[in-house]
Formats: sequence, C-alpha cells, structure tokens
Amino acid sequence: MIPASVLITEEGPREGFQIEKATIPTDRKVALIDALSATGVRRIQVASFVSRKQVPGMADADDIVAQMQTTPGVDYTALWFNDAGLERARASGKLTLEGKVRVYPSDVFMKRNINRTPEQHLAHTHAEIERYKELGIPVRDASVSNAFGCNFQGDIAVEKVVECVGTLMALAREHEIEYEKISLADTMAWGTPVTIKRVIGAVRDRYPEAKLSLHLHDTRGMGIANAYAGLEMGITKFDAAVGGLGGCPFAAHKGAAGNVCTEDLVFLCQEMGIETGIDLNALIECAILAEDVVGHPLPGSIKQGGNLARLREAVRAGAAA
Amino acid sequence: MIPASVLITEEGPREGFQIEKATIPTDRKVALIDALSATGVRRIQVASFVSRKQVPGMADADDIVAQMQTTPGVDYTALWFNDAGLERARASGKLTLEGKVRVYPSDVFMKRNINRTPEQHLAHTHAEIERYKELGIPVRDASVSNAFGCNFQGDIAVEKVVECVGTLMALAREHEIEYEKISLADTMAWGTPVTIKRVIGAVRDRYPEAKLSLHLHDTRGMGIANAYAGLEMGITKFDAAVGGLGGCPFAAHKGAAGNVCTEDLVFLCQEMGIETGIDLNALIECAILAEDVVGHPLPGSIKQGGNLARLREAVRAGAAA
Repeated sequence: MIPASVLITEEGPREGFQIEKATIPTDRKVALIDALSATGVRRIQVASFVSRKQVPGMADADDIVAQMQTTPGVDYTALWFNDAGLERARASGKLTLEGKVRVYPSDVFMKRNINRTPEQHLAHTHAEIERYKELGIPVRDASVSNAFGCNFQGDIAVEKVVECVGTLMALAREHEIEYEKISLADTMAWGTPVTIKRVIGAVRDRYPEAKLSLHLHDTRGMGIANAYAGLEMGITKFDAAVGGLGGCPFAAHKGAAGNVCTEDLVFLCQEMGIETGIDLNALIECAILAEDVVGHPLPGSIKQGGNLARLREAVRAGAAA
Repeated sequence: MIPASVLITEEGPREGFQIEKATIPTDRKVALIDALSATGVRRIQVASFVSRKQVPGMADADDIVAQMQTTPGVDYTALWFNDAGLERARASGKLTLEGKVRVYPSDVFMKRNINRTPEQHLAHTHAEIERYKELGIPVRDASVSNAFGCNFQGDIAVEKVVECVGTLMALAREHEIEYEKISLADTMAWGTPVTIKRVIGAVRDRYPEAKLSLHLHDTRGMGIANAYAGLEMGITKFDAAVGGLGGCPFAAHKGAAGNVCTEDLVFLCQEMGIETGIDLNALIECAILAEDVVGHPLPGSIKQGGNLARLREAVRAGAAA
C-alpha cells in the first residue's frame, strides 16, 4: 500500500511570500525559487496573481516570474482567482498553465469567504471550466478545501467530502476533462491521522479512480503524522512548503505554523524508502535560505535536527578511520 | 489495537530545566510544576539529582522538591545516577522512589558516555538492583536507550533491541522484580513511524508480556508521527514534555527540538478518542507558562494552533446564537 515514489509540489514561494508582512525584495524571492529549482523538485508554485492591494506580498508576482530561472523538467505553476490574474499568468510566458476547480464542503466558509451559495458556486465552476476550454488551458487540478474541518463550520461529515468529490467527478464527465489530482486540503489544520485515513478511505470506496492528493497544514503539529497516514493509504501526491513557510490567512490565530514542511516530508519519505527525486541536503540549504529571506525562524525540524543520511555517512567514515 | 486510554509521564520540568542555560529562579520552576499538578497529569518527573557542577540547571533540585506542592493521585518522580543522588531524592520525603535499570543497544554510546563494556554494564546493573532491594525501593522502570538509532553507532539492528529487552527480562526473573514499563527511548531522534512499528512488533513477538512504553524526541519533526505509530501498535505509556521542553545533550547539534510535546500528544489522543485524564486547555496554559519561565519560544504547536475542542464550542455557540 505504501507507494514506491511520490510527487511533491513545492508551494513555499507562493504560500510563504503572500503571507509575510515584511517587504521582501523580489531578487531574494527569486533566489529561493532558483535554489529550489536545483533540488530535483519537479513542481514549484511560484506566485499568485491576485489583488496587489489585498495581497501586497504578491504585488511583484509578474517580476518574480520574469526574473526566475527555469530548469527543464520542472513545472512552474501559479494561482489566480479571476480573468485578470489569469491574464497576468499567461503574459509571463514561463508558467505551466493549469486550470483548477475548487469545491467547498463547508457552506459557512463558502458564504463567508467567497459569498456564494452551493448552487451559485456550481454555476460559477461550470462557466470557469468553459472559459478554460476556450483559452485552451487544460483543467488538471481539483481541490476540496477544508476537507477535514473548518473553523467556521466545525467538523465536516465524511459523506459531505465524498459528495464534493462526486461533484468534481460529475463536472469532469460533463466537460470531458481529466484531473491529474484531486487535492484534499486541510486548509485550517483540523485533520489528524485518523480523519485523514477515514476520509481517504471513504472517497476511495466510492471513487477508486480518483487520483487523490493531500494539501496539509501543520498548525496543530499534526502535519507529518497526517502525511504518514496518507502514505499508509497509498497517497502519491503532496503539496508542501520549504521550511514550513506559509499559513492560513483565514485561521483564527496568528503566528501559527504554515504548510507541512517539505524537507521534513522528504526526510520521512527517505527513511521509508519512498523516492521523491529530491536531494534532501540541497533542500535543507533552501530551508536555511528561506529563513534568511523572510528574516525569522521557520518551523521545519530537519534543518536543525540534521539529515540522518549524513550522520550515517559520518558513522561509517569514523568506523573506517 | 488503538488503546482506550494512555498514561503520559510529564518530563518537562526535568528534561527542560537541566538543559536550559539561563539561571531560572527556583520559584519559577516550582510554579510550572504546581501548574502541571492541576492538569490531571498523573506522573511528573520533577528533577534530577545529579552533579551540581556538571548540570547547573538542576543544582536546585532539592529546593524544587521541597517547595513544590503535591497533589494526591499524582506521582512525583526524579532521576539519579548514583548513591549520592538517590540519597538526595530519599531525603526529600515527597517523591515516589522507583528504581530504574537501563540497557544500551549501542556499544559505542555505552563506551563513550558511561565508559563501560556490555559485561561491565551488566555487572553494574545486577549490583544496582541488589542495592535497590536493600533499600526497599521497588525497581519498576526499565529502559532501552537509543533503541532506534545512535549518532555514534548509526542504525541499531532490530535484533539488538530485542536482545536488550531479553537482558531486562532475564534481570527481572533473576531478581524477582516486575517492570511497570520498559521504555523504548528514541534518545537521539532516529525513529520514524516505520522503525517504531518494526521495533515494537519485533519485541512484542518475542516478549508479548513486556509492558512497552515510548520515550520520543522531536528533533527531526517525527515526534507526533512516531507517537501515532506507537498508538497504532497499542502502546499505552508515553513520556512527553510540556511545550516540547528539553533536548538531548549528546546530540551533535544545538537548538534542536526536545522531547515530544505533551500538549500536542494529548491533542492527538483527544482527537483519536483516547483518554489521557488531562485537561488540554489547562495543559496549554502550562505550555505558555513554560515559555515564559525559560524565556524563549518552545516548539509545541497546539498552544499556537489552538485546541479544536474550543473551536467546536465556538462554532456551536455561534450556530445557537
């Protein structure tokens, strides 16, 4: 059941810089992206094209993309939430453009944050997919936000998540699209290993063909345990953020940990014999660089604790000496 | 397999204060212990009676014990490594005195840190148990240090850990003692969920009667995932440290995380429906107090992320309003 390899999407640049209060020079953001490009990571989400006023940390998204190096074999992706954002992403000429559709099992969150009823959101999503088709942009990504709980609605019934995935599958059939992943997002860090397993199991029972992915936050310290639970359920796609950059702007608290930390996740995979294609030592250097770029400590552990692979080498060298 | 309840030994005061460089006033240490006594935790390791010169953070161990309040139903324990330390612990009159025996699967660690061969250590342990018997102190605790790996020896063979538990069982038979727990200690944080399960499984296969316990460190961010793996294996006894106080003085790095964080572990148990007897909200207050006492941030997550039980209450109150 445990997979032989996993695909990790590095979301640190996008998740991290959009939430940082300090103004970080564009060239420092680019330096981190360029360093990440050299680690073996195959997908990096580099920016979000959103309101410059509402998200000042991403006001320089266009410049970031213009200045970053691109490495063959690495997909550089971005987020947007409207046509204006999409146009900026297209204009860059350097990004892998992929349409993404989102469903929300929490009606309260949907009303509060995007001000739509479930019916309005479904109509919106149909139109969104048609728009992507017109533009020739493939819709490959889907996500179920707050799949494990919501600060405004509370626990989310497993059946509701299954229903959301059903909505996504129906959309795919109707519009003849195929998702490369359906992300179960623990946006507000309500998940625990038990709920992770329960939700994945229930969705799988109903939609065994769905290519599930996990987007985890470490706000309550469960990130790596939840990733482990996902690996035990055979999940092969994860989002993560170097150093544990990021956080949730909707959370009811400040200073909390962000996304599950990429290098800690890669370490877990390494120790489980799961291939990630990522050079852990190079990634740890990126995490240390990320701390320097944002100017404060980041929550990841292995950058302090040290890669066991290096300790094993040192032990072997000592024994041989 | 997942247990209905677990017994958590709070080791924060002992693990934490012995490693802190700053001189913390005794009354502040006592304040934390007294606050912990009111959380429902049933065992607190409050001090170690060791060399005042070598471990200045524990020089006031006698005063700590003299000044702390004791709550009925709570066992207050301490560590010592020689007769002088034991005498100080006895003199306090307030501690639950329990003999502890230790075995080390890493010969390199044993040579380097306690300067004994395996044979010398076994002879020492026989004598130690006899001495406890003379003094009328029950030997209830046993531990296997570095059970999952060692910075000086590298990976530890599973068979070696099984052999160590065998040594402990033979000691128990010979001296007619019964351990309340045999702690598998991940002293240097080499464990991952996979090795945790593998080692526990192998020991259980051979010694199903052994009451196993886990002592976990979070140095590489695997603490909670490892605890979860232990819970899946039916482990019912854990050591933990409030706020994630502590660390390993032998580790080859500084500033690394300490013991697995008690309140994060209690949160995991709460969400899995496992009884701990501990009031999580009160424990989170203790973690915040612990940060204030040591004067720097501590690594635990739930004190920032917030107890979901409180969020659920808020959601219900909002829905009812």
